[in-house]
This record gives sequence, C-alpha cells and structure tokens, in this order.
Amino acid sequence: MKAFVMHEIGKVGFMEKPVPEPGPTDVLVKATSALVCSSDIHTLSGAIGERTNLTLGHEAVGVIEKLGSAVEGFEVGQRVAINAITPCYQCLNCQTGHTSQCTQALGGWKFANVKDGTFADYFVVNDAKANLALIPDELSDEHALYATDMMSTGFMGAENGNIPLGGTVAVFAQGPVGLMSTAGARLLGAGLIIAVESVPRRQELARHFGADIIIDPFSSQDSVAQILDLTEGRGVDTAIEALGAQVTFENCVKVTRPGGTISVVGYFGEGEYVNIPRIDWGVGMAGKTITTGLCPGGSERMNNLMRLIVNKRIDPTPLTTHKFSFDELETAFKLMETKEDGIIKPLITF
Amino acid sequence: MKAFVMHEIGKVGFMEKPVPEPGPTDVLVKATSALVCSSDIHTLSGAIGERTNLTLGHEAVGVIEKLGSAVEGFEVGQRVAINAITPCYQCLNCQTGHTSQCTQALGGWKFANVKDGTFADYFVVNDAKANLALIPDELSDEHALYATDMMSTGFMGAENGNIPLGGTVAVFAQGPVGLMSTAGARLLGAGLIIAVESVPRRQELARHFGADIIIDPFSSQDSVAQILDLTEGRGVDTAIEALGAQVTFENCVKVTRPGGTISVVGYFGEGEYVNIPRIDWGVGMAGKTITTGLCPGGSERMNNLMRLIVNKRIDPTPLTTHKFSFDELETAFKLMETKEDGIIKPLITF
Amino acid sequence: MKAFVMHEIGKVGFMEKPVPEPGPTDVLVKATSALVCSSDIHTLSGAIGERTNLTLGHEAVGVIEKLGSAVEGFEVGQRVAINAITPCYQCLNCQTGHTSQCTQALGGWKFANVKDGTFADYFVVNDAKANLALIPDELSDEHALYATDMMSTGFMGAENGNIPLGGTVAVFAQGPVGLMSTAGARLLGAGLIIAVESVPRRQELARHFGADIIIDPFSSQDSVAQILDLTEGRGVDTAIEALGAQVTFENCVKVTRPGGTISVVGYFGEGEYVNIPRIDWGVGMAGKTITTGLCPGGSERMNNLMRLIVNKRIDPTPLTTHKFSFDELETAFKLMETKEDGIIKPLITF
Amino acid sequence: MKAFVMHEIGKVGFMEKPVPEPGPTDVLVKATSALVCSSDIHTLSGAIGERTNLTLGHEAVGVIEKLGSAVEGFEVGQRVAINAITPCYQCLNCQTGHTSQCTQALGGWKFANVKDGTFADYFVVNDAKANLALIPDELSDEHALYATDMMSTGFMGAENGNIPLGGTVAVFAQGPVGLMSTAGARLLGAGLIIAVESVPRRQELARHFGADIIIDPFSSQDSVAQILDLTEGRGVDTAIEALGAQVTFENCVKVTRPGGTISVVGYFGEGEYVNIPRIDWGVGMAGKTITTGLCPGGSERMNNLMRLIVNKRIDPTPLTTHKFSFDELETAFKLMETKEDGIIKPLITF
Repeated sequence: MKAFVMHEIGKVGFMEKPVPEPGPTDVLVKATSALVCSSDIHTLSGAIGERTNLTLGHEAVGVIEKLGSAVEGFEVGQRVAINAITPCYQCLNCQTGHTSQCTQALGGWKFANVKDGTFADYFVVNDAKANLALIPDELSDEHALYATDMMSTGFMGAENGNIPLGGTVAVFAQGPVGLMSTAGARLLGAGLIIAVESVPRRQELARHFGADIIIDPFSSQDSVAQILDLTEGRGVDTAIEALGAQVTFENCVKVTRPGGTISVVGYFGEGEYVNIPRIDWGVGMAGKTITTGLCPGGSERMNNLMRLIVNKRIDPTPLTTHKFSFDELETAFKLMETKEDGIIKPLITF
Repeated sequence: MKAFVMHEIGKVGFMEKPVPEPGPTDVLVKATSALVCSSDIHTLSGAIGERTNLTLGHEAVGVIEKLGSAVEGFEVGQRVAINAITPCYQCLNCQTGHTSQCTQALGGWKFANVKDGTFADYFVVNDAKANLALIPDELSDEHALYATDMMSTGFMGAENGNIPLGGTVAVFAQGPVGLMSTAGARLLGAGLIIAVESVPRRQELARHFGADIIIDPFSSQDSVAQILDLTEGRGVDTAIEALGAQVTFENCVKVTRPGGTISVVGYFGEGEYVNIPRIDWGVGMAGKTITTGLCPGGSERMNNLMRLIVNKRIDPTPLTTHKFSFDELETAFKLMETKEDGIIKPLITF
Repeated sequence: MKAFVMHEIGKVGFMEKPVPEPGPTDVLVKATSALVCSSDIHTLSGAIGERTNLTLGHEAVGVIEKLGSAVEGFEVGQRVAINAITPCYQCLNCQTGHTSQCTQALGGWKFANVKDGTFADYFVVNDAKANLALIPDELSDEHALYATDMMSTGFMGAENGNIPLGGTVAVFAQGPVGLMSTAGARLLGAGLIIAVESVPRRQELARHFGADIIIDPFSSQDSVAQILDLTEGRGVDTAIEALGAQVTFENCVKVTRPGGTISVVGYFGEGEYVNIPRIDWGVGMAGKTITTGLCPGGSERMNNLMRLIVNKRIDPTPLTTHKFSFDELETAFKLMETKEDGIIKPLITF
Repeated sequence: MKAFVMHEIGKVGFMEKPVPEPGPTDVLVKATSALVCSSDIHTLSGAIGERTNLTLGHEAVGVIEKLGSAVEGFEVGQRVAINAITPCYQCLNCQTGHTSQCTQALGGWKFANVKDGTFADYFVVNDAKANLALIPDELSDEHALYATDMMSTGFMGAENGNIPLGGTVAVFAQGPVGLMSTAGARLLGAGLIIAVESVPRRQELARHFGADIIIDPFSSQDSVAQILDLTEGRGVDTAIEALGAQVTFENCVKVTRPGGTISVVGYFGEGEYVNIPRIDWGVGMAGKTITTGLCPGGSERMNNLMRLIVNKRIDPTPLTTHKFSFDELETAFKLMETKEDGIIKPLITF
C-alpha cells in the first residue's frame, strides 16, 4: 500500500509499505479522507526528534477493513472517525481521566509519533473499542474529520476555561484550533468573546464562529489595554492561549481577572521557559489558574462532537480552505509549512 | 492608644493614635494577642510600596469593644478571631466566590495594607458580620490565632491541589505556611507526603505535622530526582510551592505527574517573570494545572478551622517558637527579618 | 404610595402604604416595570403560610430614588435591575456560596416573603451593593426583567445539570422556567435537547428557545420510552425537572443515564414526600445525582445574564404574552392563576 | 477445582468446576484470601434474580497463575489485589469516568453477577491491565483485601459528600461500609463526625475509625434533633447514608444544611420508591444534592488505598471479626446472614 512518510527530519515522500495486520484489540481501517495538521509540520521539522520512514497523519476517517480477534461491537464496512489521540484507557493515567496523558505526558498521541500515522491506504487503530466512532449518515466525511482533532482540541480550550454562563472570554490567535476555541466559547455560553488575530480571513472566520469583537494585535493600540477597556478594567473571566508563544501567553495572564482562568491550547515549541509575568499573576496570589491539555479522544467525545454538527449547533467545514487528493499531499504539506494562500485546513481525499 | 507602625519603608516604631471609631458595618476590637507574619516583613521592606505611619499586623484575636450601628449578631465582650483577609463579600469578585480578590487582585487584604492593621490596642474590623468568628471556650487565644492566616493559607495550598484520596504530594519549603500545607495535605487524605526543607527544626516540624519523607534540597542528590524515584518515576499528584522562588516553582512543575496540579501558596517577591520549564510542562499539553490563591477568610472558614483544633485533628501551636509582649514587638520583627534563633512564629501578648 | 398586597390567603388588592425609608445598606427604588411570577400565585394560595397586607412581587426593574447612608457605588436616577433573591452575602450560608440559602433554607428570598415585595410605587432593596445591577442602555426594561428571575432560575437548571458539551438533555415542562432551562441547555452546549410539553404555544416556544425534539406527554407513546429510544437506550446525560410534580420527577430519574444528573428547578408544592423510583435510581448505586436550587441572585449574575441579551445570545421577551398597567395587576393575577388565554408572563408597567 | 456457588436462590454449596481459561486481555488468579460481603448475601436471597451454580465472591486477593495472550505489565507469581468491580474502561460510560457503570447501570460489577466470582481455587479477572494491583510487600493479604471493596466503597461515601475541610458530617449506620465512610470522612478532613449506630461493637469501631460523637438511633431522643443540636441548628455539611433504608435516607435529608450533600452508599433493596421528605428538601429548592455511586475500581484506586495503609493513615483490619478456611465458607455465610456473634467481616483463607 501507499504511505506518506517522514523519511527523516525535514524530508517527506511516498513509499510502499505492507498493509498492516491488526492485533487482537485493534481495527484495520481503509482511509477515505484526512486533514493535515500543524502538528504534522512540527513533527517533520523535528519537534519530537528523529523518525525514520514514519507514516504521518492523525486526523482521519475511513471504513473498517478488518477487526482484531478480540474486538466486538463493530463490523467490517462501517464508516468511522478516529481521534487523533488513541489512548489505552486502562493505564494508571487513563484511569484518572487524563487519557490524553496515557502512560506518560502526551502519551495518548500515538499516530505519527510512536506508530505509523493515518496518511496511508490502510492504518491500524489501537484499542479500537474506545477509539472508533461510527459516523452518522447525516454527516459527510469532511464533517466528521473535524471531530477527530480540531473541534476536540479547540473546544477543550473553552471547556478548561471555566467560563461562567454569560462571562467574558478572550481568545488569542485564530488558527484552526483558536477558531474552534472561539466556537467552543460560544457553544458554552460566553456572553462576550474577544478574538485577537491579525489575518483578515481568520478575523472573518472568527466572527463567523462567534467572536463579538476582533482585536488586531498589530494595530496601534495595545491589545491588553483594549481588552481591559472592553471589560471595564476588570479583565476577562477566561483567556485562551491558542498560539503557543510567549507574548500571547503573557497577555493572557495580563487580561485575566483575579480568580479567572488562563486556558492553554497552543503548542509551545521554543525556548527553555515560558514566562509568567509576576505582577500580573498577582505575585502568585491572585487566584488565577493556568490549565493545559491535549486533544480529548474517544468515541464518547467524538459522538458528542458529531451530535453538535448533526443538530446544527456548528458547521466546522468553513475551516477547509483547500482540497487535495492523497497523491497531492506533498503540496498540501508545503502550503501548511508556509501558510501561503490563506490556508487553514486542507482536506485530503483518498 | 498605642500602635506599632511602619513609619516609612524600613522603619518601624510605636506611636500614639486615637482609638478609631467603627463605621456602621464595622466592629471595634480590643487586641489580646497576635502573631507576626512574614508579610509584615515584606511590607516593611517595601513590597507594596511606601506607607506612612501605617499600623502593621493582620493576625489577631481580641475582644469586641464596640459594635457599628448596623451590626447584629455580636455582643460587646465576646472573644473573637479576625481573619487576616477582610473582604466585603458583596462586590463582583466576592460574588464569584473569590473573596480574597475583593474588588481587585489581592483586594481582600486590607489590614496593614489599605487600612491600619491589628498591632494596636484597638483596631476596626470592616464588614464585621462576615469577618469575625467567636472563639470556642475550649480554645486559647494562641490556638485561634492560627486560624486567622497560617492554617487558612497553608491548608488552601492543599485544598487547591486537587489531591486524590491516598494520592502523593510534595511540599516545597516548610516555613509556617509550608508546614500548614503539609498538615493540610495530611488532613485531606494524601497517602504520601514528601516535604522539601533543609532547616533541621523545620524538618522536625514537617514530620510532626504529617510529612512521611523529608528531602534536604541541599543534599547531594537532586530533590526532583528523589521525588521521581519515590513515585516510581510518575511524579506526584500534587506539588505545593510554599517558598515563592523560581527554583522551587520550577521543581514543582518537574515533579508533578501529567494531569496533576501545582498549587502555589508562596509569595513571589522578585523578578519580572516566574518561569515555567517548557518541556516539563509538556509543551503546554500535559494537563498540568497551576493554581494560586490568597488566604481564604470569613467566619465560616475560621469556624471550620477552629473545629479542627477543638476536635483534636491538629494543634498548630508548635509553630509558636517565641513569645513577646506587645512592648517587645520590635524585637520580634527583627527576629522575623533575620530568621535567627530558629524563629517560626512569635506570639505577641497585649 | 400604592401597593398591591396580599391581604390574607386568597385575597389580593391595592392599598396605600407610606413610602419606605431605606436603612444604611439599602436603596429605595421607584418601580418602572415588573413581571408576575407563579411564585406570587403560590404565596397567595398559602404556600408559605398566612401573610397580612404583604406587598407582593419580586421581579422588578426601576430607578434609584434614594441611597442608604452607607451605600457607595450607585447614584440616584440610575436604572437598575433587582434580583428576585436578595441575600446578605455575609452570613455563614452565603459565605459558602449558597447565597440563595441566606441564613436558612430559601432564606435569600425576602421580597414578598419576609419583607414587602416590589409591586408598589417604591420598594426597598436590602444589601444594595450586591443586589442591584445597572441596566445597559441597549436593553429595555422588559429585557432586564427577565434577568431578575426567569433566566437566572431556568438557566440554573441547566448549569446544575453538568451537561457535557454536545451531550443530551431532556427538559420536563415548558413553563417560563422550563423554557429558560431549555434555552440554558442550548447556551451551555447541549447537543440534543428534548422538551416534554403538551401545550402547543409552549411547544412552539420550546423550539424557538432551542429544543430539537418535542414530546407530548399525553400522546399515546410513553415519554420515557421515547426519550430512551432517542438516546439509543442509554438515557440522557441530564434531565431537568421544571414542573414540581411526582410524575415528571420520576420520569427524570428514569430517563437519566447512569452517572448522569437530575436537575430540579420546579417548586414541589404538595405531599409529604417526593418519591425516587428505586430500581431506576440503580438501587442507590447508579451514580445518578439529584441537584436542586433557588434562583441565583446578585449583580454579577445579572450582569452576565444581561450581557447574553446585549450580545444577542438570547432574547427572552417572547415569554411576554400579555401587558398590563400597574392598575390592572389584579387581572394579570387572575390570568396567572387560571393559566387562561395562553398566558406565560404578563408584563406590568408602572 | 473447588468453587463455592449459589446453586439457586437461597441455596449455596461447593462444587467442582474446571479451571477457567483466561481470554486475551484476562488474567487467571489463584485465590489466597477473601472476604465475604453483604452483597453476596443479597445475591443469594435473590436481589439480582435467579442464578444457577454461579460462583460467589468478589473481594479477593491472590497470585497470578496465567496471563492472557495480550496482557503486558504483569508476571506469573505476582501477588495481586482485585477490585470487586472490574469495568472494561473502554465503553461509553467508562469513558465518561463512570467506570462502575460500565456499559449499563452497575455494569462494572461482574464477579458473582454476570460471571463466576472469586470464591474458587482459581478465577479469571477481565481487563486485567486495569483491574489488578500489585500488593506492596509491607501489606498482608488481609490488609489488601480491604482495598478491594470496603475501603473503596465506604470512602466513596465521603468523597462524594463534598465535605469542606473542617466541616461537619453525619454517617448513618456503622456496618463495614458505614465504618469506612466514617474513616473516609476523617481522612478527608471533616472537623466533626457524628455516627448513628445502636450496636455497641460497631459504636466502638466507629470511635476507633474517627467518629467524634455516637448517637444511638433507638435512644429516647430523636437522632435528627440531636444532630441539629450538635450543629447549632444548622445541620451538617454532609450526611452519609450507609444502610439503604427509608428512615436513614429521610433523616439524612433532614439533617443536611441548605447547600449540603446527602451521599448514598447503602444498597436499597426494598420497595418501589425511596422517599424524599419534601419540606426538609426545601420543596426542591434548598440546594441539597443527593449523590450515589458504586465501589470505584481499578489499579490506580487500589494503589491509592493501599498507600494509605502502608503509610499508617488507616488500618482496616479491625473490621475482621472472624476467620475461616475456604472449607468453612458456608458457616461464614450463615453468620453474615444472621449477623450473629457480632460479625462484621469474616476473613477466608484458601
């Protein structure tokens, strides 16, 4: 079968691999569509170290091709969504509810990290009982794809933020995850959502997904000052960091009211430290909480997310800015690296 | 009346002040005993800026001398404990439950900050209905004093830590607040408590208050490595920062398991930033939560804390290492500044 | 001034009363508009015992006429909303966050219970600092009125229900509170909302406020069976009881999945007991939680609710089915008693 | 091998069964010791319907005899504790954290319910990765047995009760589960624990495990009145129902303060309904929460519980009042049925 791999840091390409065999609790899935994620780009650039001929990809839907010997409750031919994160659900961390931290920090992330990813004609889903969700007939593949990572990760940003009903939220950066944090804040009842973003297309999408006010961080007025003004000097109940940068993290701490929450969904890829501004943090005493997390997985989660699409709470597909066939995946990767042509998410069809 | 004041940064002394008059919702209290807090020392050294002839002190018990015109439910002559933090309970922040952040960050802290403190023959308690607690007959003044700040602040470190019953906890630094965090972790059902402290007397008290294992941070082996060893490499469920220093904060992040909590009770007095070690923080994705807070106040809180003493769950008085009369308060301050003579808490009697 | 009172159980009418004088922490408000609540009808019929010439009414907006001597932060002439519940915020129950249970069970409810209500030219708001919220210019009196009780109470039904994002909810009964629970479930991200209601106008409003599916409890098929069918036999994550009747309470327990929540917002006015069906409750072991509550009050709450209206998350005014002048209040009461003419909420203008 | 079975309702006895074969994710355990649980008695009397030759027992420790083909992380010969509840951890209910409700209400309970129990020379543990915990060398089999059900269930009563640090708790009934709820409340920082129990031996144990005050429900004074007196008329923060009877459930509602929690751990075996006293429940508005649950399982849980024993927080073995060999199991059952001879828990040795 054909697989799109990372030969080594910085070098991608297609190669032939044998169709993998599912273990007793696994399921083999035939890929039908996929999305490319910035994490794939980070991986390629060496974020998790060297990898050799590792198949990339972790946002996928497909059709069940073969069941492991101990798998019950599914049938060959069913159309399924597979979360980017595929925990075991049974280790000590999973038992505490921190399934994305399966076995170890970030350990729920297995595709294109510790095992072959989903950019291949076929791929194996571990612990299939928990990690596969049937796609409702009402939903297209494209819809379902967004339940595998973008909605789950972005919404988590809002869920971790402890937003009071009618409360105020600022979301820093409106890439696909930030946009889904904006949408998540809206879904969870925020009364005022301020999105910080400079790219016009992303600003538009931010409005589309529920932002009330857009602040351009490169405008003449400081975005922290603007947010404080918009909240009568009190700061927001919840600030969501969706970029993974020192400046936005720091601004999150600054705009959050005493007793509020800074919810991090961005990936921090650089530097030895991420720095908390001491005074704005209330010298460690202002009751500001900083939360983090990694994409919540599982069939229950995906069912809930897909229900939101079925019942018209949200349509995530405006995130799709480009479409490619599997053969053209390298082009999609290049665009995602350069962020050219206003790309947000490219849809890949097999 | 006599008051012990901060004349200016770095300069303390006694002065005569008129007995203050309570407003409609206030109560005037005649001081009977007090404790000196490190915060008093920080204030004196300029931590909150210049102050002129401000009466110091915020850990106090006394006897009700006079009731404000609108105060009900108390009587002159009652023996009362007054929390270090005296919020209004009615502003927007208070209404959200973040009473220590009354009106603004740290705004519940009024004594010896925005109004005269308790080191005086008489002092006024604002919003008396909520900020006074009757002292049970079974308790001495000294017992009750510990409910006004040390127990409340230290225990909060444990309460914010989300400790699972039987879980593992590391407490960094065993000053009076850290010791009470250790005691709090014990009271809340931690199954293993590791205290990090180098001073022998504090190590002893840590054991006394519930630590199972003491680690000397200046021993040859790294304390982070020791804590990871003691938890089979998994890290603790909860790390409590009770020093307010970069090194201990950083170590807290390092020793906390994915999905665990770093609970800050230390006061961070220096530097522009407090730095989170990026990789140990799971690049912002390991589900580690960082919480902070300021001494919870109120009569309900003090009642609960005093009940723990009455019913023999804890006796905080081993924290008292020295005793002075009000006249000797300057000596007590000097000792607290230098931490000489193994001082932990000096009891002041009026 | 003119006041609309309950002379005795079952007997209402207008009478002259002197304009009341605000105490030090009170504010005197000149009424401008009001809503009639079913609770007024319950009170009139004797639900809380005999009352003599007690002014009725507790959903009101008005203009500040006079400030108590100790009140700061407000000015005469400001347009304000007053919550139906006016706690002290300072007693022991209030300090725990259960402000609606001020001093004692349901003790936050003071208007038309332990003090004169708001159906008068002027009325006094106790503990004004916390119990008054300025009405934004964008909002009409009618808008703001819904923030004083209906939205707060109904939304609480959803907030107490622990609804997972995208989860399933059933709301039993679609009176004004039930409709606001439906709206609240929608605002909080429920993925499927099933409303149980037989009255066509209320069914329509249920759809308007966010219900996906309406079940008529008097149709041929059992509503419990229908709800289980709609959730693949699993039951809903959250069932909201908004009627206060044995049959709906019992059905809530039956349709809630193991581990789910039954959230009660209905007033239970009859019988010695409310009965939990033992087997459906999992013989006390199915992890089903039953929560209750009384309208959350306070300015912070009302600010949050009004923000939802300002920013177009919800417009509660379709609940207003009738309009009367203050003079016609007795007519409005009669309609509320009989529920004739499809009445939901009558708006009263002063 | 020899197995102790329920031949039919009301009839037990030994019979020969073949040693079972573990499936791919199972482990075969050789029993070494066990405890008899009241649930076994309920099962025998028909509580869950007819069963034919079903092996009884669900509180067991043993030694690993054989690993399923897909099981990693364990070795033959290891000494292990097995929780009474053995969920799959991967179904939808398990994914929400309600593992004891695996697949369906109470579905995590499999031993001696839907599969053979542990009263046999060998038994099979499903989903072994999550359901086995290694026993620390410091602990005897007897110690570890209490982590499999009694401590986990009883402590859950306290954990679900939302006890504030220093708060007040009443525990109704001091059988083995109630005693462990008392111990749990103590471990979690309750400031006052009132145990309601009439049997002298159980009263003594209640004191031993942490009760401050014992109330005899058959004494001349009403236990509700006594508890209200002991809490200045306010009621307790948390009432724990550990009997499963109408009278104690009702009393729990009566003694719980507004905003407090009634935590049910008793098994309710009789009647169509369990009845909530309407007025004491605050007509559905007093903010009283009623929680329920079934023994939390899993290796993480058992590790935490065993850590509490290792580090001397608790020694559960005073619950053992009788000891029998496996051959004498029928005698133990008889005693558990009649509760004669002051039996609390009989230890069975293989």
